[in-house]
Amino acid sequence: MTRLKPPVDGLLTSEPDAATTSAPAKGDALQRLASLLAVDLAATNAAIIARMASEVELIPQLAAHLIAAGGKRLRPLLTLASARLCGYRGERHVRLAACVEFIHTATLLHDDVVDESDLRRGLASANAVFGNKASVLVGDFLFARAFELMVADGSLEVLRILCNASATIAEGEVLQLSTQNDLGTDIPRYFKVIEGKTAALFAAACEVGAVVAQRDAATCAALSAYGSALGMAFQLVDDALDYAADQDELGKTVGDDFREGKLTYPVLIAYADGDAQERRFWQRTIEAGEQTEVDLKTAFDLIARHDAIGRTIARAHSFALEAKAALAPLPDDPVRGLMMEAADYAVSRRR
Amino acid sequence: MTRLKPPVDGLLTSEPDAATTSAPAKGDALQRLASLLAVDLAATNAAIIARMASEVELIPQLAAHLIAAGGKRLRPLLTLASARLCGYRGERHVRLAACVEFIHTATLLHDDVVDESDLRRGLASANAVFGNKASVLVGDFLFARAFELMVADGSLEVLRILCNASATIAEGEVLQLSTQNDLGTDIPRYFKVIEGKTAALFAAACEVGAVVAQRDAATCAALSAYGSALGMAFQLVDDALDYAADQDELGKTVGDDFREGKLTYPVLIAYADGDAQERRFWQRTIEAGEQTEVDLKTAFDLIARHDAIGRTIARAHSFALEAKAALAPLPDDPVRGLMMEAADYAVSRRR
Repeated sequence: MTRLKPPVDGLLTSEPDAATTSAPAKGDALQRLASLLAVDLAATNAAIIARMASEVELIPQLAAHLIAAGGKRLRPLLTLASARLCGYRGERHVRLAACVEFIHTATLLHDDVVDESDLRRGLASANAVFGNKASVLVGDFLFARAFELMVADGSLEVLRILCNASATIAEGEVLQLSTQNDLGTDIPRYFKVIEGKTAALFAAACEVGAVVAQRDAATCAALSAYGSALGMAFQLVDDALDYAADQDELGKTVGDDFREGKLTYPVLIAYADGDAQERRFWQRTIEAGEQTEVDLKTAFDLIARHDAIGRTIARAHSFALEAKAALAPLPDDPVRGLMMEAADYAVSRRR
Repeated sequence: MTRLKPPVDGLLTSEPDAATTSAPAKGDALQRLASLLAVDLAATNAAIIARMASEVELIPQLAAHLIAAGGKRLRPLLTLASARLCGYRGERHVRLAACVEFIHTATLLHDDVVDESDLRRGLASANAVFGNKASVLVGDFLFARAFELMVADGSLEVLRILCNASATIAEGEVLQLSTQNDLGTDIPRYFKVIEGKTAALFAAACEVGAVVAQRDAATCAALSAYGSALGMAFQLVDDALDYAADQDELGKTVGDDFREGKLTYPVLIAYADGDAQERRFWQRTIEAGEQTEVDLKTAFDLIARHDAIGRTIARAHSFALEAKAALAPLPDDPVRGLMMEAADYAVSRRR
């Protein structure tokens, strides 16, 4: 945990501090980016609410549960920022940012679906209010709605990028399911999972901003590469925070990944470097899913023993460098500066 | 059950009988349509198998479970038939027919997802092998793959039609979920459910065939109307067969809808016309989901007492007439003849 920076103020919840734009280490780059793009972001929120409407009441009800409650809007923010960085001056990026958020929300809803085995283990968490079936169907509605919006926008290139990302997300999620609880999963395979489930939509969200601004292939590819590396960094830090952060600072409960038997980067490291007894611990708790109350404490200890948090953060850091390098060829600009800082923030954040 | 025609030969399983093309009452119109379009249908099957591929093994594995096992291919057949009827001579309809089947299969997979309450009632049927989560994620993959195929095809009009159908399907399914076990559901609301969950994709499948052939708006609308009415007829007869058919003739087990507490047209009729005691029976078995072994027999008796099967079939019959009327303005053609016969077959079939 030594590499983690001190806690920072709430993300997008407190007032942005315009005076601190030159202080990347403070970690509020996303907040300042949201502030810089506040008009676009407000228009995106309005588009999201408007297009969630359906005469079938359960749909806006459940969708609002996730969307209107106000998430970080990280992915749509990337679309807005990329479009702005590429000099776009129209309105299409707002609608496409809404599409990106719909796709993200749909995947969250589908991720909420649990199996009987999860229920037995007491994990009927997120979809407890509405149930599996509602999560699936409302997610489907949001997916379809996202594609309707894209069709209305009329760019086959945008459609291609976001369809492709959707297929990649699904493949990543299926791969995660196939490797779940399997400590034999290697790092490349794990990276393939998070490339799918996280990085693909980050990459697409950024690329769409360049496409809408009609920039050349190299610029589109640069923004896609930035988004992909940023997504990898975010996911790795998410993995780390689940074993590292103080519970009251985190949106999610610390230890969730452990309790769900999720294979994440810190666990793969601790398992790979663990002795026979340690491996038996992970086999019992993660593979077999047999956990008692003291196991979380042991897991934290083993993670610390192998510096698995520090090593996870270090890996995230190198992705952040990749992300920044991808933006280097683009012209210097306040948006580019904040996007680069966002990559640092992805690593330094405590929540 | 008096309105049901005698049993017919297996659908798409035995050899087509070319000599009987003028005998609509025999009910093998779909088989003959498949035979007439055998080359296109084989190409569609090949496209389906090819595009199901993924290096994530669980995907083709689970998809094959539903697709390659060889369903009726009813919806893609409608796309192929409509395109042919509209004089289309290219290859695009094959790929779009595969898209239609992918969307259908994705909805089937998502329909397999069960809630904890279903599990308690012992209904973990179709997804028992792979689980909820796999059904959701592989369904998502197929949806995304379908849209990728459409993007590759390049018609925004086709994309608009199938995105819109997908949103309508999801809305219909959510509405069904909202009205599940609710005997207060009225007929218009029930029709809205089946328009969404069944008729929308039938309509879109047909309309896409006309669009690909670049026919005028009136022709596209006529084929959409045909598909929609045909879908309504099919769904109503499905509802009827669940209470009417002999078990060994049916793909699905008779009484499934009853055991799952599904509100279908025959039940709504029997409930609306039932006396106080009968209503209490439906309230207990359908609304409260409390069933004993003798209840299915009682349900059959009550359905018969109110001629609910006959009245369901009669309603399906009027949709079949609508379907045929929609095709009337189109030029006479063997394909049009078989599509009209298919509407009759939708009503007369026993499985």
